[in-house]
Amino acid sequence: MSVSTVLADRSLAAPLPVLGRDVTVPLVTGGEVAYAALDYAASAPALQRVWDDVAAYAPYYGSVHRGAGHLSQLSTDLFENARTTVADFLDCRSGDQVVFTRSTTDSLNLLAHALPAGCRVYVFETEHHASLLPWRDADVTFLDAPRTPRDAVRILERALADRSPSPGSRPRPAGAGHDGPALVCVTGASNVTGELWPVRELAAAAHAHGARIVLDAAQLAPHHPVSVRDLDVDWVAFSGHKLYAPFGSGVLAGRADWLVEAEPYLAGGGASRRVARRADGGVEVEWHAGAARHEAGSPNVIGAYAVASACRALSDAGFASLVAREQDLLARVRAGLAEVPEVRVLSLFGDDAPRVGVLSFVVEGWNSSHFAAALSAEYGIGVRDGLFCAHPLLRTLLGGDPQTQGECGAPEAAPGERSLNAIRVSFGAGTPDEHVERFVGAVRELVREGARWRYRTQDGRCVPAV
Amino acid sequence: MSVSTVLADRSLAAPLPVLGRDVTVPLVTGGEVAYAALDYAASAPALQRVWDDVAAYAPYYGSVHRGAGHLSQLSTDLFENARTTVADFLDCRSGDQVVFTRSTTDSLNLLAHALPAGCRVYVFETEHHASLLPWRDADVTFLDAPRTPRDAVRILERALADRSPSPGSRPRPAGAGHDGPALVCVTGASNVTGELWPVRELAAAAHAHGARIVLDAAQLAPHHPVSVRDLDVDWVAFSGHKLYAPFGSGVLAGRADWLVEAEPYLAGGGASRRVARRADGGVEVEWHAGAARHEAGSPNVIGAYAVASACRALSDAGFASLVAREQDLLARVRAGLAEVPEVRVLSLFGDDAPRVGVLSFVVEGWNSSHFAAALSAEYGIGVRDGLFCAHPLLRTLLGGDPQTQGECGAPEAAPGERSLNAIRVSFGAGTPDEHVERFVGAVRELVREGARWRYRTQDGRCVPAV
Repeated sequence: MSVSTVLADRSLAAPLPVLGRDVTVPLVTGGEVAYAALDYAASAPALQRVWDDVAAYAPYYGSVHRGAGHLSQLSTDLFENARTTVADFLDCRSGDQVVFTRSTTDSLNLLAHALPAGCRVYVFETEHHASLLPWRDADVTFLDAPRTPRDAVRILERALADRSPSPGSRPRPAGAGHDGPALVCVTGASNVTGELWPVRELAAAAHAHGARIVLDAAQLAPHHPVSVRDLDVDWVAFSGHKLYAPFGSGVLAGRADWLVEAEPYLAGGGASRRVARRADGGVEVEWHAGAARHEAGSPNVIGAYAVASACRALSDAGFASLVAREQDLLARVRAGLAEVPEVRVLSLFGDDAPRVGVLSFVVEGWNSSHFAAALSAEYGIGVRDGLFCAHPLLRTLLGGDPQTQGECGAPEAAPGERSLNAIRVSFGAGTPDEHVERFVGAVRELVREGARWRYRTQDGRCVPAV
Repeated sequence: MSVSTVLADRSLAAPLPVLGRDVTVPLVTGGEVAYAALDYAASAPALQRVWDDVAAYAPYYGSVHRGAGHLSQLSTDLFENARTTVADFLDCRSGDQVVFTRSTTDSLNLLAHALPAGCRVYVFETEHHASLLPWRDADVTFLDAPRTPRDAVRILERALADRSPSPGSRPRPAGAGHDGPALVCVTGASNVTGELWPVRELAAAAHAHGARIVLDAAQLAPHHPVSVRDLDVDWVAFSGHKLYAPFGSGVLAGRADWLVEAEPYLAGGGASRRVARRADGGVEVEWHAGAARHEAGSPNVIGAYAVASACRALSDAGFASLVAREQDLLARVRAGLAEVPEVRVLSLFGDDAPRVGVLSFVVEGWNSSHFAAALSAEYGIGVRDGLFCAHPLLRTLLGGDPQTQGECGAPEAAPGERSLNAIRVSFGAGTPDEHVERFVGAVRELVREGARWRYRTQDGRCVPAV
């Protein structure tokens, strides 16, 4: 489902109930205010329903897979059913595997571990570090930052063509390029700009050149339906904690072949089917072939169940109306920021590019850490400042050599001085209108009137100088 | 604190409240009964206090380390304080690092990843797979099964001496044997027999030969105080889910040097301090040096907090009285089983060896899976049957070629037929007297009168043929 299709449904749902919606925080200027969690792109609050499901299950928690007791068997069924729920949520193909990991980072490290020998990896330099860095043992081609979605496809095609032989040579073997296996890793929605990447087109380009593709859906899955089948991606990775299920589980789902052929990600019980001493004194191990192959150790049953619960909750709420509501909030944020000339919204693909509810910006004359600290201390708004674990992208967006300031520096940077880092605001299914209204008002007020308080650096944080 | 010291305190505490203590399960023979969770060695129920702490924190959950908002900073403090709590619980040395992992298996895989080049690993074949298998890239010496604790020390010393040069050669460089770095991996308490291993003596032997030692405390930490300092081990690993905190976190704690020198366990954000494109098109990464180096991706804050909460709860309850109570339960189980001649309790070190509340046995004339299924279906008791992810040890204990039956086979094995697997009963701080009394009575009754129901194999499980 594309954003435009979804936007056609304008019936705006209420926010989904989340934990923390009644939490108040003290203001440095006096009094307390309801906390406005606007850092969903880092970690989203738990959906109330996810929490309720976890709380209902917790007394029935038991060891999975090998326990003979009633609660062990219940827990095993619940854990294995969670795979099916996730597969349905992602619209997986029959035969796809769902492996529970701890996070997107872990999922991509698992896939990196499972690459066939000689695999070449293609990744845009604009990815966040979870997509950029895991391919340590592979031959990696870092692709330059594209400035339009079409540009991204063109850059990938050109790079993949470079590994293809000249036209007229013998046909490519199925499933592998002329140079052996290759993998493209691409984000679905940027964790910095929120911009959507042309996943379907990139997948087509990859497959046309005999490469596989993994979709980093960390920022896409919480904000937009993901169909593995429609997008025709080979794998998808996402994190529970960004999908309103912060209980330590993530997912890698997709084709079984590379996973089954790889050495287990972790070595230990659960992944091993049979272990015996060999005559030469060593040990001989027969590993499982299913998802358990890469899930050694006791699984995080509560984490996996929480992810499945979130998948069900989002599907039941109707993703179309959630997207419509989020896009409405996004439009308000953008309109509000557009009225403040000192604010520059960061974008790779341009103002018209479709985005999820994630947006980064800099404020002329302001140190970003200072600005974020003031949003927190004076307005009870939680955003993030820094480089968002996407340093090369920030370099492209900000120009020059970005760095996490992590300290207040001068209370206000000299007018015209280049920002070294940025401020990110992000929201989702649990965000009430008031949070974005307060945020837009706060930005306007801070830029116009300045911070009301003084700030200082303490333990690398910018905090009120009380 | 040794078991005997602890046993001197005979004031038996009440069981600690755990989740699930009021859960009832249906009996195949009709009616319902309170579930007796006697599979603590696989996974223990959450302490009520751990659950209460998690529930109190959950609304305040926020992204850690880089968020500017109030809840992010609160969550960061809580996460980092959890390290300190765990370090105190384990009586770590100053300078030791506490890395949050997902489990003991994960912790030992992390340490395996961090071994210096050329490191030789020594591990007894009697270890469970989490300790036995992670050393895939190392040169591993599997040590034969010892039959006494003293035997274990002797076997290790002999193996380590083999790598030492002849007497009179030049002195050993500090921290490394003559042959380069070496690591001994040893369990604190067996997950099969519950027997305690001579950790302090093994550590002394390792150090005398210039080797390091890691303690697998998966089964020790929940049952017995662990002092890194007193035992003089270099690292210790344990799992939250066996320590009454089943929220997906485990721990590797100990010396920083190998960890700081190793490549990050996972590559991604959080572990990286600075990332930049290089002139040659690649990327250049500067990694963190602290615990974050091996914790890439958003940390499982709730999981880590739950582990810290469990550490506090056990310390506050007074470990001495918990151990005393558990030893009392163990004595009752052993006395009860001793009255049933058909029961053979498995032991590596002999009847007098000190144990924690973990005990495996076979019943002559019974298929263990069938027996465990009857304990569940007819008595509401959850134990485990199988090989407990310790196949070579089960081979030693049972003789011949063990295998997980996983099916009922003949309702009862022919008298005198060798058991292919075993039954494990395990308990801990949350176990009420009634559970072990019911268990002992059920074993007696099943052996004397046989199962009252018929069982069949379904999906690899032995279940009532209803």
